[in-house]
Amino acid sequence: MNGSEMMALVRDLYPLCRSLTGDGVRETLKRIQRLIPLEIREVPSGSPALDWTVPLEWNVREAWIRTTTGQTIVDLKDSTLHVVGYSTPIHATITRTNLDSHLHSLPEDPDWIPWRTSYYSESWGFCMPHRLRQTLTDAEYEVFIDSTLAPGHLSYGELLLPGTTEQELLVSVHVCHPSLANDNLSGIAVATAVAMLHRDQPRQLGIRFLFIPGTIGSLTWLELNRPNLILIVGGLTLTCLGDAANLTYKRTFDGRCAIDRAALHVLEAEGKSHELLDFYPYGYDERQYNSPGFRLPIGSLMRSRHGRFREYHTSADDLSLVSGDQLEEAAHVVSSILSLMDRDRCYVSLAPEGEPQLGRRGIYRAVGGGGDPEALQYAMLWLLQAGDGRHTLLDVAERSGIAFSVMAEAADILETHALIAWSDPDEGTALRPSRSSR
Amino acid sequence: MNGSEMMALVRDLYPLCRSLTGDGVRETLKRIQRLIPLEIREVPSGSPALDWTVPLEWNVREAWIRTTTGQTIVDLKDSTLHVVGYSTPIHATITRTNLDSHLHSLPEDPDWIPWRTSYYSESWGFCMPHRLRQTLTDAEYEVFIDSTLAPGHLSYGELLLPGTTEQELLVSVHVCHPSLANDNLSGIAVATAVAMLHRDQPRQLGIRFLFIPGTIGSLTWLELNRPNLILIVGGLTLTCLGDAANLTYKRTFDGRCAIDRAALHVLEAEGKSHELLDFYPYGYDERQYNSPGFRLPIGSLMRSRHGRFREYHTSADDLSLVSGDQLEEAAHVVSSILSLMDRDRCYVSLAPEGEPQLGRRGIYRAVGGGGDPEALQYAMLWLLQAGDGRHTLLDVAERSGIAFSVMAEAADILETHALIAWSDPDEGTALRPSRSSR
Amino acid sequence: MNGSEMMALVRDLYPLCRSLTGDGVRETLKRIQRLIPLEIREVPSGSPALDWTVPLEWNVREAWIRTTTGQTIVDLKDSTLHVVGYSTPIHATITRTNLDSHLHSLPEDPDWIPWRTSYYSESWGFCMPHRLRQTLTDAEYEVFIDSTLAPGHLSYGELLLPGTTEQELLVSVHVCHPSLANDNLSGIAVATAVAMLHRDQPRQLGIRFLFIPGTIGSLTWLELNRPNLILIVGGLTLTCLGDAANLTYKRTFDGRCAIDRAALHVLEAEGKSHELLDFYPYGYDERQYNSPGFRLPIGSLMRSRHGRFREYHTSADDLSLVSGDQLEEAAHVVSSILSLMDRDRCYVSLAPEGEPQLGRRGIYRAVGGGGDPEALQYAMLWLLQAGDGRHTLLDVAERSGIAFSVMAEAADILETHALIAWSDPDEGTALRPSRSSR
Repeated sequence: MNGSEMMALVRDLYPLCRSLTGDGVRETLKRIQRLIPLEIREVPSGSPALDWTVPLEWNVREAWIRTTTGQTIVDLKDSTLHVVGYSTPIHATITRTNLDSHLHSLPEDPDWIPWRTSYYSESWGFCMPHRLRQTLTDAEYEVFIDSTLAPGHLSYGELLLPGTTEQELLVSVHVCHPSLANDNLSGIAVATAVAMLHRDQPRQLGIRFLFIPGTIGSLTWLELNRPNLILIVGGLTLTCLGDAANLTYKRTFDGRCAIDRAALHVLEAEGKSHELLDFYPYGYDERQYNSPGFRLPIGSLMRSRHGRFREYHTSADDLSLVSGDQLEEAAHVVSSILSLMDRDRCYVSLAPEGEPQLGRRGIYRAVGGGGDPEALQYAMLWLLQAGDGRHTLLDVAERSGIAFSVMAEAADILETHALIAWSDPDEGTALRPSRSSR
Repeated sequence: MNGSEMMALVRDLYPLCRSLTGDGVRETLKRIQRLIPLEIREVPSGSPALDWTVPLEWNVREAWIRTTTGQTIVDLKDSTLHVVGYSTPIHATITRTNLDSHLHSLPEDPDWIPWRTSYYSESWGFCMPHRLRQTLTDAEYEVFIDSTLAPGHLSYGELLLPGTTEQELLVSVHVCHPSLANDNLSGIAVATAVAMLHRDQPRQLGIRFLFIPGTIGSLTWLELNRPNLILIVGGLTLTCLGDAANLTYKRTFDGRCAIDRAALHVLEAEGKSHELLDFYPYGYDERQYNSPGFRLPIGSLMRSRHGRFREYHTSADDLSLVSGDQLEEAAHVVSSILSLMDRDRCYVSLAPEGEPQLGRRGIYRAVGGGGDPEALQYAMLWLLQAGDGRHTLLDVAERSGIAFSVMAEAADILETHALIAWSDPDEGTALRPSRSSR
Repeated sequence: MNGSEMMALVRDLYPLCRSLTGDGVRETLKRIQRLIPLEIREVPSGSPALDWTVPLEWNVREAWIRTTTGQTIVDLKDSTLHVVGYSTPIHATITRTNLDSHLHSLPEDPDWIPWRTSYYSESWGFCMPHRLRQTLTDAEYEVFIDSTLAPGHLSYGELLLPGTTEQELLVSVHVCHPSLANDNLSGIAVATAVAMLHRDQPRQLGIRFLFIPGTIGSLTWLELNRPNLILIVGGLTLTCLGDAANLTYKRTFDGRCAIDRAALHVLEAEGKSHELLDFYPYGYDERQYNSPGFRLPIGSLMRSRHGRFREYHTSADDLSLVSGDQLEEAAHVVSSILSLMDRDRCYVSLAPEGEPQLGRRGIYRAVGGGGDPEALQYAMLWLLQAGDGRHTLLDVAERSGIAFSVMAEAADILETHALIAWSDPDEGTALRPSRSSR
């Protein structure tokens, strides 16, 4: 799935009226299902979700404001942002003052429609450009929201690409924002592309993809999957990956997990400018995954940071804000991080006393006396020296300054010659037969 | 007790002839007793004080040098610094050469009288301006010191402001220097002011104030209070707090104790320039408290560092060197450090799986979609994320960059809503009922 | 042994044709034996050496290339570098093309002879200046190598200067390079000088000197001495110490061993520019000592780094590259590092509660009130404060900024007055009688 194909998916999903629940999310998941074998889960309203409860399902069919003479001011048909998310139904003619208390606009960006929600307190409202709001001078207006807020389901999508072990990586994206391209659809497109890319590759660690409504979706999934959380060894939430900014990685709560180091190594190896953020308790579902009761090692990859770019949560976060090249690069980086996590492991030398004689095995240059060895031979020497079963490939790559890929190639050669074996770091130098599953 | 009142105390105590023991110290303690309910302890000469012994009590009534024609050269009446501390009695006419071997002066500061002592080897001596010493050309002089060095007592003052727990903070000042304003009286004034300020405040940790002669006083107190030392969780020695220099904090031997972090946080929060010194085995009674057999976490707060300002231990350390404003600021900082220590503790989240739903409890803004939350809400999110029972409020304040006071306010709100509870860090995530005593 | 004497040794050993084995090494060891009581070990070919095997012994008596008209092109008599180390015997007239495949030269340094070996794959070859090689235009040449590659022995030299404990320091130099002055002979000369210097000094830790062929020598020694390796508490490989560059210390694999800190402290105390290198798995026998099965804390001291100076492994690494002054300085630094390692230890205060009264013991100035104490008294105060049995002299020297030598002097004084005692850091504050053996 290249950048153009990812943009095509973004364009396809852009018009749908998504929210925490409802047919917009359901339709979004079905369209993703055409590309990857997503399972769509439906969790009934009222189900427990840790400290929360799955809310009523919300669907909106029509919503507008008209003058008493029938002139349309705003209409849901024109933008899914016009109606406040989870608005209760209404049909009434009300005073301008009353209406105004239900309106949201942005005086500083008077041409943009803001996006607002009222998930957890019942009310209704409209969002519009501030310039338009200022033209409302009539005494009364007719408002109509044909919505239902009723027992139904919370929908989310899940796909597990199984590995040869039970351990898993987690990729989580939110699917609850309406027509917002960068904050929502870019993450969806990148996760879909990564799933397609990895579907047919062999892997040690399973990769689990979640397409979920923000907060309540991850809380619900965590509630339902508590026993299996221990199998998650790392992961990422993905968001805002299509804009023009550099890639930014936000660390886990712990900050020194394998995923933190893998992300940093890949970003540095890419050689492009990037930013690192320490964990903070705001953002997306990494908040839930990292909470003290779980402490799942989930970082977050983004470009512009939520809430810190001007178009954030406005109609200006539209298709023009994201580009296929940026999405493609992001998918490539995510894929590399997952691959590194999958490949990284500890090795123990099987000839730990002194250096083994590589020359006898035909994996060392024959004539001595020259200068430093080349990178691959150097990587072999490093792995043998570090081979006490407590250093991962990434440890040795970081320490030696040799690229992870070269280190992995060296490990393959040494493993083939039975000079190193995969080791469980918790067991120290105790040897373990090299698993055949790789 | 404001700066003027503190200066009044300094002025009142300035003329008294203090030493390790004797009536000067006793009178000093009595005058402090008018302000705070100090208990005055008297420990007999010869009592063991760890590796030391409480010395004989020294009192001096009169001391002078005269020419053989009766002209007075120096007289104790003019300055308590003129006689070497713990001088043995003498009345004799002696040669200039002999006299000179008993004189102390400062060639580089020829108008100042140095302060010298001879506590632990019996001798006598006089201190005088170098310029005056140079005028001594007679063949003989009459010297007179009417002192007694006899079994008596070592006197010190002690005040405990009890807390709701048995644990204590320690504030220790030395009271053994004669007419020296910055090195001695400034610490006495600040400790007295802090005691008055905290006397009527509720507190978790007791605050114990010691007004003691340097070294032998703390050794004696440590000898007598060995069983209770384990209850001391932090503290400060106070000295040289009235001069014009910035505040300087000297770390404990360990360097990373709670008191070290509290002092740093308060000094940084004050926003004024300040200095930090690593522990060194010189200075004041923090040497004794930090010694390897005790390792009490006692730091030291000062302005100019002892021995490093020109007026140190000379007659130029007089009333003009200290100011009420500087004393008042120092008292404020000491008070803030003690309060922070008292308020800091670990919390554990009572809803640790995912984030609890703050909105349902009315402590989160209702309409979603806006930007970053404000500091107080952010502090709540931080405390909930950090709520594994191993992070103190100060840990979270330092990590988040949010002020300790805001963090404490957030903790109060969350505790009220039963979302967090006080936790013992040694017990990890094990819960503990929130103590009612706060 | 001063610099001139060290240079005399270098000059004496320079012409010998050393290799991994053979009479060149044997003669080298015998000449060193004239200066220090080296024991010469002979290990039979075929003996196991960890993953390796002791090779056949190689000796070469004559080697040359001649034109078919009898004109000599190169001759072993002119330079020991001309013949590839471990060349098999040959006597044949061969085509220029065939000959050329057995030649080594340096196009970038066309006047220098490279040094090449073929220890572990049987072949033969010659090394010559590139300029000379380019003059070879005849169709055929006569080549002659009168060598033997036959069962014999690997020879190495060993000297233990015993200490009063069983623990040892290790100094290891390679002796397998032919006429190369800096890379080989400089290390031999420095090790010999250090052995002579320490021979008659009292010491706690034994010092073991190894004069061994590179790689296979250390592997053989490790194989034979496995049970005693645990006694080695630190050490150095020495190489390339005679050139004009600054001293460079290469850390152990661990990087924070006592030897690493000792080397750094001595280099810094010397006040000269120096470089520090993190461990890398290339270089000399420190590779074998640090391998994961042993992890002996062996660093490496050098000036120019092997493979990184132009003359490395060429005929330009001759007597003119090394100087007596540089050798002498290096020997002094090595000696200081070994002495520091020998002297460093943990002390526990025997009067840990408060400070002991130094004045009563006559080791503190009598008159109080002056400024900071001088370094020796300050060092005493530091040792007493640090005296919890977990700080070594070097720890306290580093922390206080006081020179190690002053710290050691202070320790002597305090130990004389029974104020501190030697302590085993693993036993924490538990006291241990001061060993009489110092």
